[in-house]
Amino acid sequence: MSENKIPYKIYLEESEMPKQWYNVRSDMKKKPAPLLNPGTLEPMTVDELSGVFCRELAMQELDDTTAYIDIPDEIRDFYKMYRPSPLVRAYCLEKKLDTPAHIYYKFEGNNTSGSHKLNSAIAQAYYAKKQGLKGVTTETGAGQWGTALSMACSYFDLDCQVYMVKVSYEQKPFRREVMRTYGAKVTPSPSMETEIGRKINAEFPGTTGSLGCAISEAVEAATTQEGYRYVLGSVLSQVLLHQSVIGLETKAALDKYGIKADTIIGCAGGGSNLGGLISPFAGEILRGENNYEIIAVEPASCPSLTRGVYAYDFCDTGKVCPLAKMYTLGSGFIPSANHAGGLRYHGMSSIVSELYDQKIITARSVEQTSVFEAAETFARVEGILPAPESSHAIRVAIDEALKCKETGEEKNIVFGLTGTGYFDMVAYQKYNDREMSDYIPTDEDLQKSISAMPKVDK
Amino acid sequence: MSENKIPYKIYLEESEMPKQWYNVRSDMKKKPAPLLNPGTLEPMTVDELSGVFCRELAMQELDDTTAYIDIPDEIRDFYKMYRPSPLVRAYCLEKKLDTPAHIYYKFEGNNTSGSHKLNSAIAQAYYAKKQGLKGVTTETGAGQWGTALSMACSYFDLDCQVYMVKVSYEQKPFRREVMRTYGAKVTPSPSMETEIGRKINAEFPGTTGSLGCAISEAVEAATTQEGYRYVLGSVLSQVLLHQSVIGLETKAALDKYGIKADTIIGCAGGGSNLGGLISPFAGEILRGENNYEIIAVEPASCPSLTRGVYAYDFCDTGKVCPLAKMYTLGSGFIPSANHAGGLRYHGMSSIVSELYDQKIITARSVEQTSVFEAAETFARVEGILPAPESSHAIRVAIDEALKCKETGEEKNIVFGLTGTGYFDMVAYQKYNDREMSDYIPTDEDLQKSISAMPKVDK
Repeated sequence: MSENKIPYKIYLEESEMPKQWYNVRSDMKKKPAPLLNPGTLEPMTVDELSGVFCRELAMQELDDTTAYIDIPDEIRDFYKMYRPSPLVRAYCLEKKLDTPAHIYYKFEGNNTSGSHKLNSAIAQAYYAKKQGLKGVTTETGAGQWGTALSMACSYFDLDCQVYMVKVSYEQKPFRREVMRTYGAKVTPSPSMETEIGRKINAEFPGTTGSLGCAISEAVEAATTQEGYRYVLGSVLSQVLLHQSVIGLETKAALDKYGIKADTIIGCAGGGSNLGGLISPFAGEILRGENNYEIIAVEPASCPSLTRGVYAYDFCDTGKVCPLAKMYTLGSGFIPSANHAGGLRYHGMSSIVSELYDQKIITARSVEQTSVFEAAETFARVEGILPAPESSHAIRVAIDEALKCKETGEEKNIVFGLTGTGYFDMVAYQKYNDREMSDYIPTDEDLQKSISAMPKVDK
Repeated sequence: MSENKIPYKIYLEESEMPKQWYNVRSDMKKKPAPLLNPGTLEPMTVDELSGVFCRELAMQELDDTTAYIDIPDEIRDFYKMYRPSPLVRAYCLEKKLDTPAHIYYKFEGNNTSGSHKLNSAIAQAYYAKKQGLKGVTTETGAGQWGTALSMACSYFDLDCQVYMVKVSYEQKPFRREVMRTYGAKVTPSPSMETEIGRKINAEFPGTTGSLGCAISEAVEAATTQEGYRYVLGSVLSQVLLHQSVIGLETKAALDKYGIKADTIIGCAGGGSNLGGLISPFAGEILRGENNYEIIAVEPASCPSLTRGVYAYDFCDTGKVCPLAKMYTLGSGFIPSANHAGGLRYHGMSSIVSELYDQKIITARSVEQTSVFEAAETFARVEGILPAPESSHAIRVAIDEALKCKETGEEKNIVFGLTGTGYFDMVAYQKYNDREMSDYIPTDEDLQKSISAMPKVDK
């Protein structure tokens, strides 16, 4: 294998790192539907959003026309500590599968947060600092976002308050300690520190919390403390904007070696990684310049694209955030607890939802035992222990490569390897011990949460 | 900072990756003392070593004259999945310390084993496979070596049997599960599967094991099963040979940008990372071509170089391995359990010991609270969560950079960042909660274990 022209890892030079983020909304003729004020059902304004978010981030959130937005030097300097990230040719996986397909993966796990989340965390921390804020608040479930935000805040010397779902706080003490090492204050949610937390604790004594409840506490903490704002790690259009750095680097690395991607695959929870990875490719499709098969992969246990409805819904279980039009299972949908990983969001980024509705991208759902089977195969030959989330993309990449084996096609398959699984060994242990099971919600389950959604006729 | 000529991360091209390992013994006029057969006190022969080790590795172990040894293509192909590793300019740490020094670190944590151990694991697995063996056995304490070997064996489809010190097996279930994910059989030691294990369990019911005991079990398992050999992750000269890839890449990256290192710093447990990092630099000193200040950093709790004696001793607590001349605290020395990390070895590689005795390198010991303080400082500005072992080198790099701040010297300081601390969060938690303490053995402690050493007049 030593003589291959394409190296195992395609690293761009630092000078080739994107200087601007790409805003895919600018190339969409039909734009994603606007966020609505849940009280008035009118589109949210920058002023309204600025009470919760930093002003510059609120502007990015609503900007659907500017194609390229400069990445500030301070953010690029931070990016340089772990970017450009490698685009890896999966020679060993190809050999193992005996496929004529060429498989590439963009590896975003090469940083201490263990995932792509850092790309947006550092941007959000930067704008908070620039606005002169004291700190930011957020929630975290699996812990990747909280870790990324802790790192970013530590770098810019901002206070960081993380509300961590109580069950994760207790079951994932290592995640918690990484955040503390970076100086964050980590509070198990529901806590006694917020009004909503006290209320929930009184109503449901002994509850182990939920992401929706943690969001509500983080938003309350942001709006009741002077000099604080709330930040969010996925779903929002600003986050997809920042994550476009993934796709821009991927495209640049492919172009450098004259490789034309055929199939692009990403896992989809809230849509931040997928949206970032595919943005420049979707842009080419939208402008009629090129064609790609783009596949969003979601867990069969939480199938918002493949089995949800496209409608306005709350972004959070606590119903404190604006309404977004998206593919959703209903904000009251709670995925089975037996499912590992961070793809347990009831909805989907409005950008990804609109691209899916316009048939620019497709979607597929996979079951978790087959996901871990793919993860194990990948780890053993490619040497990287993938996060359960990322492994959803691996599953479909392997499936597509095996199809090529049947047809003989030499497709170029590109997928996003969003992160590493070092903090997910409880799930791996279940798989190793053959104690993992699958869960697929019934039509009745989905009907129940979908029918409880707000009725917004827009 | 954007305009710096030297990038944050200096990546070599795959084509610039070393094609040969460098054997520093070839440039030593006075060679490291030979391994002795503990029965006859005569130098071990290749034939004798081949009963325990693969034959080609036994030859490498005893070869102190060949300067360069080809790295087989199969090993280079594996290296390409995570090498060349970056040499990082620590711009943010320099700024934080406000030092005129230029600080560089060679980062070896960019792989799933989380450390440099993989460099030798893949070589040892390769030679085992080439010899037609069924599998290998080893012991692991903290788990980095066991993880690396599991990955290497999985790649070459070799059986891998890891005896893991029982207390680690129970306290570090995640490490255990990573190994299992790579297909290794992990057995808590002492086990009931070996004669020595059964004996120890009978003698000390409820014992939580020790590295010495795990070595004895692994050696027994290797020598009593057809087609198995024992492999070891540090101390041995063959391991330092494989690890020279670290130093060769570091040198090549510095040369590429015309940087002359002044001070080179590495942590030292058994000596594998330090020996690998410094080999080409020590070679230049030995050949009279150049001069460097080389500092080995060891924990104050286990100070083999700074407070040990230079004499023949057993390499293992179980006294089943050959005798090696080295700086040692006595094979009966057991470092305080309160000390975190994997630098708890009573002795030191015979190559590093001899270089230290010849004053080619110096040594320094540091206390663990100051090590974790350095780790936290580093993590917060450089974004990588370092392993406790690696953080010993960070501590001294920071100390040296602060000296430069006083003197105004623009020294080039290079240190080895051997790995990440994702599986060491229990130690970080102790530090975060201010519950970490230091331990320095008394002269009486050391005298006791040193006086119990074998008396070998060579």
